[in-house]
Amino acid sequence: MEQTIIKKRVIGVDISLEETTYAIVNAKGEILVKDSFPTENYPEANDYIATLSERILMMIEENGGYESVRSVGVSCPSANFSTGCMENSPNMLWKGVIPIGPMMRDRLGMAVAVANNAQVIALGEHAFGSARGMHNFVVITLGTGMGSCIFSNGMIHKGSDGYAGEVGHTTIVKNGRLCGCGHRGCLETYTAAKGIVLTAQEVMAENDAPSLMRSAEKLSPKIIAQYCNQGDELAIEVFRRTGMMLGLGLANYASVVNPEAFIFTGGIAKAGDWLLDPMQETFEKHVYKNMQGKTKFLVSELDEDNHDVLGASVLAWEVKEYSLFK
Amino acid sequence: MEQTIIKKRVIGVDISLEETTYAIVNAKGEILVKDSFPTENYPEANDYIATLSERILMMIEENGGYESVRSVGVSCPSANFSTGCMENSPNMLWKGVIPIGPMMRDRLGMAVAVANNAQVIALGEHAFGSARGMHNFVVITLGTGMGSCIFSNGMIHKGSDGYAGEVGHTTIVKNGRLCGCGHRGCLETYTAAKGIVLTAQEVMAENDAPSLMRSAEKLSPKIIAQYCNQGDELAIEVFRRTGMMLGLGLANYASVVNPEAFIFTGGIAKAGDWLLDPMQETFEKHVYKNMQGKTKFLVSELDEDNHDVLGASVLAWEVKEYSLFK
Repeated sequence: MEQTIIKKRVIGVDISLEETTYAIVNAKGEILVKDSFPTENYPEANDYIATLSERILMMIEENGGYESVRSVGVSCPSANFSTGCMENSPNMLWKGVIPIGPMMRDRLGMAVAVANNAQVIALGEHAFGSARGMHNFVVITLGTGMGSCIFSNGMIHKGSDGYAGEVGHTTIVKNGRLCGCGHRGCLETYTAAKGIVLTAQEVMAENDAPSLMRSAEKLSPKIIAQYCNQGDELAIEVFRRTGMMLGLGLANYASVVNPEAFIFTGGIAKAGDWLLDPMQETFEKHVYKNMQGKTKFLVSELDEDNHDVLGASVLAWEVKEYSLFK
Repeated sequence: MEQTIIKKRVIGVDISLEETTYAIVNAKGEILVKDSFPTENYPEANDYIATLSERILMMIEENGGYESVRSVGVSCPSANFSTGCMENSPNMLWKGVIPIGPMMRDRLGMAVAVANNAQVIALGEHAFGSARGMHNFVVITLGTGMGSCIFSNGMIHKGSDGYAGEVGHTTIVKNGRLCGCGHRGCLETYTAAKGIVLTAQEVMAENDAPSLMRSAEKLSPKIIAQYCNQGDELAIEVFRRTGMMLGLGLANYASVVNPEAFIFTGGIAKAGDWLLDPMQETFEKHVYKNMQGKTKFLVSELDEDNHDVLGASVLAWEVKEYSLFK
């Protein structure tokens, strides 16, 4: 009979284009130790995974030892929840299919689960944030791109191929703006960072009114939101248009999925009511009638600096339930 | 201690505007006895439910007795899966919220579950049809309206308020056709029966070409599909346009839900490849890139005359799992 050891800790890893963060987290969601290094230093995925695994093993050794850790949860872009691979990420250095999960599992000798940013944040919100007690909700990430995750009957709905939640690539305008994915009119070409800057340029071109945006060195959703707070009418118009597109996209989402709440996270969500008020107005106009007035719109409650590793740690606890790439 | 009796049968009920069908079904999905009566004869919901319940009790008494039956599953329009009520159906005689499930439970003295047409067909397809072994799929019903049901992680995704799946009321054309729900541009105004006839009128108005549709006494999707089979170019154009709208709507659906398959049922699905070929072409153009070529499009395998009562019977077996309106 194998010896039974109660393992009270897991590893949460967050991989983004610039930086990789990893931490030891306990079951209460407390981050015991955390470190990070630049992802960009590793043009080869193999080298990267070797380094990440060594760093994790070293962190474990210095903080409680190998036997104290149960499993690993990884958040990364274009994650396939079912296979544990990063697949054809348009933003990362490594092209094609990168088997991050299986390779880490082999190097670390423990179970590894891999999910995308929206999925781990959904797990984090469900365990420790705005979605405590909810069985059906949707997390929306708004930043460089637009992603989402559906919680259905208390579980992540990962879909047949692990790709569910790609609301940023639903078509919202026929023959609309060209998207990084090659299609036209995708929702994120209006609601994510680049799209919002494009809308700002359109608004400035269509209007003679003065605006702080005209003299900005480099426009970004963050700066445009600051101008909104200063009463800049054209900046407000930018988020009004963005909110209307978002509201229409989320109304279609809700009519199909009927979530208790949409929970927003990511830089753009910080525009707050400048974005959310016009969004909600358009949403209520278009959502299926029996759902009108029933959907909550919440902003993530979790500490922004840690919500990815925290969510990844919740994923680590659930490794068995999802039986990933065994 | 209560006496344990193995109850090997359930009741499946299908309520539609014209007719109500009810049957005793065993666990293999065999319909042992079936009967029906006109729904329209009962302008009062209370009278209707009393009659339906009495008829069911009589059928049970004449076929194996009360102790042989475990529970009841009901398929009806605008069903709220969570409460067991029919809520604000635009098509039925009875207005407002009709507590069909709770009232039948009280009259029959057994557990009753209520779901909409798409949901019971999804259960039927999963148990006995095209979706055997699938954990994530979507049933699309195309008839008077357009409905759907999502199967997520092997269960019906009913959503927070029991309304999930209303893809017919997602906005596909901004300021488009007026829908029965009061909104404009809903998908079903292009893909369900009335919408297809409207498209036929548009096609005839825009073209001088001769067409069998011009001399038809009363146009319907069924007749238009027959004309397609006879090589009528304008009839083919009607389903081409319908298919393109459907393909766009389902691409957005798939990008969010990522089902293994869409399973079509209902009268309009019988147009077959006249509808499904242009649908699939548009679908593949718009769906999220990583899903391209991966989604199956299937037509229901179940016997059309019985698939509603059959699906309702599967619902009856699952009463406990879904713990309806206790």
